[in-house]
Amino acid sequence: MKEMKISEAVVRRLPIYLRYLNELRMSEVQTVSSQELGQRLNLNPAQIRKDLAYFGEFGKKGIGYDVGYLIEKIRHILKLDQVIPVALVGAGNLGHALCNYNTYLKNTMKITAVFDASPNKIGTQINQLTVLPMDKLSETVNEQKIRVGIITVPSAVAQHVADQFVQAGIEAILNFAPTIIKVPSHIRIHQADFTAELHSLAYYLD
Amino acid sequence: MKEMKISEAVVRRLPIYLRYLNELRMSEVQTVSSQELGQRLNLNPAQIRKDLAYFGEFGKKGIGYDVGYLIEKIRHILKLDQVIPVALVGAGNLGHALCNYNTYLKNTMKITAVFDASPNKIGTQINQLTVLPMDKLSETVNEQKIRVGIITVPSAVAQHVADQFVQAGIEAILNFAPTIIKVPSHIRIHQADFTAELHSLAYYLD
Repeated sequence: MKEMKISEAVVRRLPIYLRYLNELRMSEVQTVSSQELGQRLNLNPAQIRKDLAYFGEFGKKGIGYDVGYLIEKIRHILKLDQVIPVALVGAGNLGHALCNYNTYLKNTMKITAVFDASPNKIGTQINQLTVLPMDKLSETVNEQKIRVGIITVPSAVAQHVADQFVQAGIEAILNFAPTIIKVPSHIRIHQADFTAELHSLAYYLD
Repeated sequence: MKEMKISEAVVRRLPIYLRYLNELRMSEVQTVSSQELGQRLNLNPAQIRKDLAYFGEFGKKGIGYDVGYLIEKIRHILKLDQVIPVALVGAGNLGHALCNYNTYLKNTMKITAVFDASPNKIGTQINQLTVLPMDKLSETVNEQKIRVGIITVPSAVAQHVADQFVQAGIEAILNFAPTIIKVPSHIRIHQADFTAELHSLAYYLD
């Protein structure tokens, strides 16, 4: 397949398709129509067909899409046909919760190192990982070829952690602190923003 | 202001503006230009001007937008000029973490009740809230006029919790379980999806 640029909106929908397709495969479903996908995901079937046609994937009339093939294709496009090591800074409740998501990530993104600045947390265990001190960040990122950083520290120190990630050579950041972080333009940053999510929900209340 | 329909994309950006405007107000900044907003939020200034013009808000040339006025306007549009009581089901690590966000929600959305099915968790304290058993859900939703439900339980029981929220009369749900939930069409559901967020980030790695 030729390299091409896919819009951000499509890139955000592909993981949603992927998760449902994985659920279908686990139930041994072999084909799925855009109607079924649309109904289940609250999306317009025409939108789904457009998204999938984007990368040359067409369902067969009356049969639909091949689940296994579509999974492989989306994983390839999202570059998830490899294990991408992830570091997490902030071993509080949220950090703990995210480490438990490792099983849902299905050997694609994988949290392989956890860091914290607090002496109370350094050396404790989260699942199989030992919480490391911040001065091990650069070394660990290098050794484990970590490419993505997750920030689950309080807002007041989030920018400082982001700076340390950038210095350590990380390529992308997922920030859970409810504050705006600045990074150089070659670093990709996504905001996982619970407060914004909840605030936008209010609009739809009658 | 007349009632009008604002696109979902705009509704999702308004809380982002709101958070930064709140930060500006705390620093006693009185006006801000669309350029500054754009730079800080990684958004196109033209896009910001378009979003704000949407609800009749225009910056003054060379001065910019009045921070305080814009905050009130966005809060009003998002219906955040009231306290909206929120219930959370699932008093695990993620549930704990979200309860700690109450301070960031600035008396708009407010988690006022926490529930869990596990006898080990019922009766324990999270901040000022006592974890309640599931059979108190309907009664509490009624008494506290709770309108929004947050789901932080494992995927396997998320649909069941959603059904209980719907029966209790909740209007909107924010689901953190990495699974797809079906609700009647009059219920608004948002997916706070950490795994999808991380998977879409992979696409942008070189």
